[in-house]
Amino acid sequence: MSKPKILITNDDGIFAPGLRYLIEVMRKLGDLVIVAPDKPQSGMAHAVTIQTPLRIHEIANEPGYKEYSCSGTPVDCVKLGQKVILKANPDLIVSGINHGSNSSINVLYSGTMAAVIEGAMEDIPAIGFSLNDYSYHADFSHCGPFIEKISLNVLEHGLLPGTCLNVNFPEKNGSPIKGIKVARQGKAIWDESFDERKDPHRRNYYWLQGQFVDKDAGEDTDQWAIRNNYVSIVPTQIDLTAHHAIEILNSWKF
Amino acid sequence: MSKPKILITNDDGIFAPGLRYLIEVMRKLGDLVIVAPDKPQSGMAHAVTIQTPLRIHEIANEPGYKEYSCSGTPVDCVKLGQKVILKANPDLIVSGINHGSNSSINVLYSGTMAAVIEGAMEDIPAIGFSLNDYSYHADFSHCGPFIEKISLNVLEHGLLPGTCLNVNFPEKNGSPIKGIKVARQGKAIWDESFDERKDPHRRNYYWLQGQFVDKDAGEDTDQWAIRNNYVSIVPTQIDLTAHHAIEILNSWKF
Repeated sequence: MSKPKILITNDDGIFAPGLRYLIEVMRKLGDLVIVAPDKPQSGMAHAVTIQTPLRIHEIANEPGYKEYSCSGTPVDCVKLGQKVILKANPDLIVSGINHGSNSSINVLYSGTMAAVIEGAMEDIPAIGFSLNDYSYHADFSHCGPFIEKISLNVLEHGLLPGTCLNVNFPEKNGSPIKGIKVARQGKAIWDESFDERKDPHRRNYYWLQGQFVDKDAGEDTDQWAIRNNYVSIVPTQIDLTAHHAIEILNSWKF
Repeated sequence: MSKPKILITNDDGIFAPGLRYLIEVMRKLGDLVIVAPDKPQSGMAHAVTIQTPLRIHEIANEPGYKEYSCSGTPVDCVKLGQKVILKANPDLIVSGINHGSNSSINVLYSGTMAAVIEGAMEDIPAIGFSLNDYSYHADFSHCGPFIEKISLNVLEHGLLPGTCLNVNFPEKNGSPIKGIKVARQGKAIWDESFDERKDPHRRNYYWLQGQFVDKDAGEDTDQWAIRNNYVSIVPTQIDLTAHHAIEILNSWKF
């Protein structure tokens, strides 16, 4: 039997330790094609490059292992990996490991998760992995066995059409991981402000800054799972319809 | 009674005719603050600017009417409008009118809709307006009465927490609009490829190109509504959890 073809990307860029760790874990599971951004693309969400053309740079081209950097976003990387490198759909797309959590509403800002949602749009099984630690030198060593187990399950069972997985790991904190929790996306907000500064020409410029505020007391959320030292898996979908709001809107007078 | 405060943005940029038309319609409904990108930001989705600082440029500052261009993405514009210009939450956020449809899966790529989803994250009523016509000189003249009616309804009734509206207009085609349909997000894919070219230094570069393929025969979709000359309204939510997949994942052996 031929090995599964696995497409790997991330949003922290081709040199990020989280990606390098993910590649090492996935080497055991299949033939790899890595297409990752040539610079950090955090916070790029589902952006695609349409105003400028894209470049790809070959880093490795061996049997069972191809690696490329790309000038675009994580979603561009997935599209290029499929259409230009593989010229076919991979059996699995994995993205990450992100340096920083993509739980709760962070899924909407995340380039890591956008790459995976792009897979869901074409019914390619896809998993995003993120660690609740923003540090460049974060310790990913506790993630490997879970990445392997989750990926093997997805390769075996597939995923429902239009869905993908958002997997978040607790940061390495000395306590052993208690297990895996299938969870829902928790409710939270970013309490944000802008740091206003003046440049040498006395013109204002602004830096976005903010604090993540969990607003959800539920024990079935991704946030709860991570806080309690579980790996969280949120099944995530591309249908954004608020089906529960349709009846209300139908009662409005237009 | 004081007039509602309305924050307006788009993703085609501050000079786009769709935005100028939306501003004229909204002038009747409230006090306006416009913060829009200083260049086109189509396909930027929910991207936020975190690697570079942001700039704002004041264009108008009159009683009841303030207008600014911003160096960032549509989501940056919403955040700056709230935190730096209004220093409070607006009563309503509107975005558009986009030159091009944001029905179906386009909602996931759209900067116009990301601005609106950003509102939903903070429970600010928000509506995205898009026209099924990509032309810069598109005719928006049939949209005004519907924009007014939908906006007045939202100002009166509010929206459910964590939801916003994705409104799409048929292109002006000679037939009168039949009315408004509350719809679900239709299933579709982009059938894409890359146009591979060589630069003068013989290096490859790639342009993304693609065709939208509707995959949904339902008569309750946004695509159906627009094709049949209705204005479609899809209530759109920030909870991406595929709740129907939770039970399946819980049956897996990890």
